[in-house]
Amino acid sequence: MKEKFVAYIKNLQNEITSALEEIDGKAKFKEDKWTREEGGGGQTRVIENGNVFEKGGVNISEVFGKLPESMQAYFGVKDADFFACGLSLVLHPKSPMVPTVHANWRYFEMYDAEGNTVDSWFGGGQDLTPYYLFEEDAKHFHQVCKIACDKHNEGFYETYKKRCDEYFWNSHREEARGIGGLFFDYLKSSVASAKDDKNIVTEMTMQDWYNFVTEVGNSFLECYLPIVERRKDLSYNEENKNWQEIRRGRYVEFNLVHDKGTLFGLKTNGRIESILMSLPPVVQWKYDHHPEKGSKEEKLVEVLKNPRSWV
Amino acid sequence: MKEKFVAYIKNLQNEITSALEEIDGKAKFKEDKWTREEGGGGQTRVIENGNVFEKGGVNISEVFGKLPESMQAYFGVKDADFFACGLSLVLHPKSPMVPTVHANWRYFEMYDAEGNTVDSWFGGGQDLTPYYLFEEDAKHFHQVCKIACDKHNEGFYETYKKRCDEYFWNSHREEARGIGGLFFDYLKSSVASAKDDKNIVTEMTMQDWYNFVTEVGNSFLECYLPIVERRKDLSYNEENKNWQEIRRGRYVEFNLVHDKGTLFGLKTNGRIESILMSLPPVVQWKYDHHPEKGSKEEKLVEVLKNPRSWV
Repeated sequence: MKEKFVAYIKNLQNEITSALEEIDGKAKFKEDKWTREEGGGGQTRVIENGNVFEKGGVNISEVFGKLPESMQAYFGVKDADFFACGLSLVLHPKSPMVPTVHANWRYFEMYDAEGNTVDSWFGGGQDLTPYYLFEEDAKHFHQVCKIACDKHNEGFYETYKKRCDEYFWNSHREEARGIGGLFFDYLKSSVASAKDDKNIVTEMTMQDWYNFVTEVGNSFLECYLPIVERRKDLSYNEENKNWQEIRRGRYVEFNLVHDKGTLFGLKTNGRIESILMSLPPVVQWKYDHHPEKGSKEEKLVEVLKNPRSWV
Repeated sequence: MKEKFVAYIKNLQNEITSALEEIDGKAKFKEDKWTREEGGGGQTRVIENGNVFEKGGVNISEVFGKLPESMQAYFGVKDADFFACGLSLVLHPKSPMVPTVHANWRYFEMYDAEGNTVDSWFGGGQDLTPYYLFEEDAKHFHQVCKIACDKHNEGFYETYKKRCDEYFWNSHREEARGIGGLFFDYLKSSVASAKDDKNIVTEMTMQDWYNFVTEVGNSFLECYLPIVERRKDLSYNEENKNWQEIRRGRYVEFNLVHDKGTLFGLKTNGRIESILMSLPPVVQWKYDHHPEKGSKEEKLVEVLKNPRSWV
């Protein structure tokens, strides 16, 4: 399974970076290969100062070895080995009319002292963070997510859409980071983690989950590119750009204060530059900024404070 | 003691904001009074878009009531009441030649169910974050800190300078946030927390600590203003400003990932805008940015990675 999934994310990284370069029309991804002292490494691909993308990264990594101490406590195990691989991407467009997007698809295995696999699971998802709300875009993004989910189980979309809203909640601001999408974790054969969701059948093999996660991964470009295409040439002014940069502040706040993946990476000696490539290129913090009553900016905040159903 | 210290910080807020308005010459502080539902409140004073200061706040607060649950665990107590007051300031100058400064002086009391005071202590400090290193400025800042400390105990400067270097350490970057200053906490009559420092006498009453902390507070303007005066009219170019904004990213990373005070505030329903006024106005994150070999920018990073003795 791990070789199959590694091959999948390598291929997907190529597909996604090619498609993004094509739509950008100017900037090219630069690749940094890195190795991890304790085992494994990755290929970070970064795009900067494009026509469409101000900054973004599409990274894959494959790491393994002794489970770090901080993770042992987290998973409640001792002296375990692990293997983890995944593709992680964040794109920050230049135009405030084009939403930021984030996606991640990953696979994890854990081994006992004798090297037997004791646990394995998939995780990931994809979510959209607009600066101006185009309902048509939100519906499109969620619709494509739902179609991918529905092929595997009619309950998946509802469940993983809800988990996404819960996970990307900037609790200190009482608002969502964006308008959501999908978020799932601990997808295992036994599906113990999903037992609270009565509409999810519990008969999923790891191969079934592989099929599901790769279906979602394959849907990413269809989720995002039509939105970029529709919005990339809209005009905008300095005020729109300021608003984007202020909202990007909330993105930074979420990633540095609440995001488990980021904090985990920062506290366990991950490759800092690959982890923090998720941070936007230019960000503003204004004291006590509030959008004007009835403005487009306020309409966005309204939706972030009260997550909606989009399909 | 609490009335005396509240009166002190109110007066100090006036003194500091007046002096800063004078040196800025353009912007004035705007005051927001706020109240805390559970007890107490504060006065936040914010300056923006000045000649010298791009953004800054000089805030006082006085809060009390039931000790929040998250704090009970932290202090290892149950059903306690508390009182906390303090002045907290951060100034982000426009010019990259003028350093950012942070200071905080605070007093805390804790009560049992019968309302008896079971514990009380002072905390605080002041530290400097330059974007370009002028050794003369670093020496001046530390020298004034040392003079204030020396009046109370010859061991204080060395001890609290070291604690400052340890506290403001951006561990995921393996560098200090700035060039340090003073940091102290849990200053109590018994001085239990300082028992590891053999050169600190243990005979300090709360009145002695009050005298020490206010001595440090009173030294703040003398620490900082001469530096502002010397650097505020130096010329700088876009490259210098970019460097400042990139370094401000590290300031954000420290405050949101590592700073106990910020995280505590965000997770205990503090007044978000007063807490996050510490964040710089405009920030950049560039992927894998490194200053040029032999540049002034590299010289700064060198000192941040290897904290120095300045006096």
